[in-house]
Amino acid sequence: MLNVCLIGAGGVGTCAAYVLEKSMRCHVTAVLRSNYAVVQKEGFDIDSVDHGQIRGWKPHRVTPSLSSATTDQPYDFIVITTKAIPELAASLIPGLKPLITPSKTSLVLIQNGLAIEEPFASAFPETPVLSGLSMIGSRTTSPRTVFQEDPDQLRIGPYYHHVDSLQKSTQLDAARLFVETYSAGLSDTKSGAECVLAEDIIAARWRKLLWNGSFNTICAVTRMSVGEVLSSPGRTTLLEPAMREIAAIGTAAGYGDTVSEDVVQFLLHDTPDSSPFRPSMLVHLEKGQPLELDVILGAPLRVAREKGVSTPVLSQVYELLNVVQWHLLRRQTP
Amino acid sequence: MLNVCLIGAGGVGTCAAYVLEKSMRCHVTAVLRSNYAVVQKEGFDIDSVDHGQIRGWKPHRVTPSLSSATTDQPYDFIVITTKAIPELAASLIPGLKPLITPSKTSLVLIQNGLAIEEPFASAFPETPVLSGLSMIGSRTTSPRTVFQEDPDQLRIGPYYHHVDSLQKSTQLDAARLFVETYSAGLSDTKSGAECVLAEDIIAARWRKLLWNGSFNTICAVTRMSVGEVLSSPGRTTLLEPAMREIAAIGTAAGYGDTVSEDVVQFLLHDTPDSSPFRPSMLVHLEKGQPLELDVILGAPLRVAREKGVSTPVLSQVYELLNVVQWHLLRRQTP
Repeated sequence: MLNVCLIGAGGVGTCAAYVLEKSMRCHVTAVLRSNYAVVQKEGFDIDSVDHGQIRGWKPHRVTPSLSSATTDQPYDFIVITTKAIPELAASLIPGLKPLITPSKTSLVLIQNGLAIEEPFASAFPETPVLSGLSMIGSRTTSPRTVFQEDPDQLRIGPYYHHVDSLQKSTQLDAARLFVETYSAGLSDTKSGAECVLAEDIIAARWRKLLWNGSFNTICAVTRMSVGEVLSSPGRTTLLEPAMREIAAIGTAAGYGDTVSEDVVQFLLHDTPDSSPFRPSMLVHLEKGQPLELDVILGAPLRVAREKGVSTPVLSQVYELLNVVQWHLLRRQTP
Repeated sequence: MLNVCLIGAGGVGTCAAYVLEKSMRCHVTAVLRSNYAVVQKEGFDIDSVDHGQIRGWKPHRVTPSLSSATTDQPYDFIVITTKAIPELAASLIPGLKPLITPSKTSLVLIQNGLAIEEPFASAFPETPVLSGLSMIGSRTTSPRTVFQEDPDQLRIGPYYHHVDSLQKSTQLDAARLFVETYSAGLSDTKSGAECVLAEDIIAARWRKLLWNGSFNTICAVTRMSVGEVLSSPGRTTLLEPAMREIAAIGTAAGYGDTVSEDVVQFLLHDTPDSSPFRPSMLVHLEKGQPLELDVILGAPLRVAREKGVSTPVLSQVYELLNVVQWHLLRRQTP
């Protein structure tokens, strides 16, 4: 049995923990914070398009903190499914150290945005970092209940950070093992769920960023649903230019094929004007929670500055959301 | 006695009607819409830093519509104190025609923003248009109650539109008469209220726009108070650049002395970081009412385009507020 530690049992993380245990190839230790007591007592209820109705399910082990997640058997994978916030990553790193066994453990980041791997790769240069992108449409509906609307589509690839002592093949092998294990947990689903190896995961991140950098951010600033923005004058004055700015940055970064005009056109026309979907950043804003602003806009805008790409819309949207985020965080602090 | 018709009895308009009647030199006909019945029955209650507590006050006459505001004695002044919205101006103009007596009536616009005079001057080229800027801090607290926090500071000047048949002196005389009349209504106040003649009222509009184009718009997009924006990173990333863009446009339009760096510095440091003030555009947004976006940002941005002034912050703030306004108006329409 593989030994897995999973940090961040929200919508994505709880489903991932369930799938990994369903593979019958892992034991999962889930690190829970605010919901530890209730899950320890009653387990999770999951309503899933992939797995049906699950009641009172518990991972192999739940712990209330990183420091209580230590184990005799070294971890094969530490899966991080928290929100992608630089401050949160920085605060996790010291606690991860005792959980990582050199030449054994790999980190798996299943998170939104760009450049999320960097802090982990710098802190643990000898440890393979696997980078994962999830399309799953799952969300927590209470501290112990999760609703999953769309089939689990998970892409995993090695980050390939540049360290002589860490072979590319080691990193790729780790990614393969994780994908096989996760896929085993999806083998009995009929909803189209799949976990695939994406050797160029950074390209896939740019592809997803076309949508997240434009729709997600502009819906948040305007407090409007995807369909409302698409029906509004903002479709041509904000959304399309924003998406083309992401495409221009991605092209300058060497991912022109991935963020081509064809893809932009597809994304602009794929969603109906009637869609009531409220993207994650708007949901976080409305809940008064931190936004994934740095990994969704901050990081691509740093690339834009480095490459000299002009970003008239995104720069202002970033500054406005940065102020909104400052306001959210200030209200949280007593 | 002068005969005055006043359209738009909100915070500014109700106080103006009261002052004009208090002068003992006018009869005011106030055109009321939604609050006609209640004011006709019970009058206005006004709590005013200038005039104290006034209970059950009624203008000389109230009418429920423009068409019922016709009178045997021609109007000397038609005072418009509605919100400055181009669609509203356009819808008022046909109804104003029967109320205007050539060589007798002047229009007085007491409204925010830039270029508010144009539609009236084009529709009534022979009629003097007086342009007024009010600093009064008054607001309606119910359909028949008004709260006035700051002393009434009203500047009135002729718009001087270019028509051969209308003498400059005629326009200036009309402005003088209005200022004298209004001042008579303020003569017993001790709070610092005053009505003054501003021969270059357009310069005064640019001066006020420095604040309205920056603080008012950025508080609205971010849904934050003046003090919150001032304390946030947005002070340097958004507010200061936005105000300097207005200054650059005003300078290109020939008002460089009025919108100088000294004035910018004063406005940036005049308000304490602790100010809980929520500017008008934010208040309108929160009430789901139309924003004065065109006269506060649309008009100066048209000047910017004409003069080739770069407006990276204001252009995006405008587009975002334009989308928010679209959303507000769509929700109003059944």
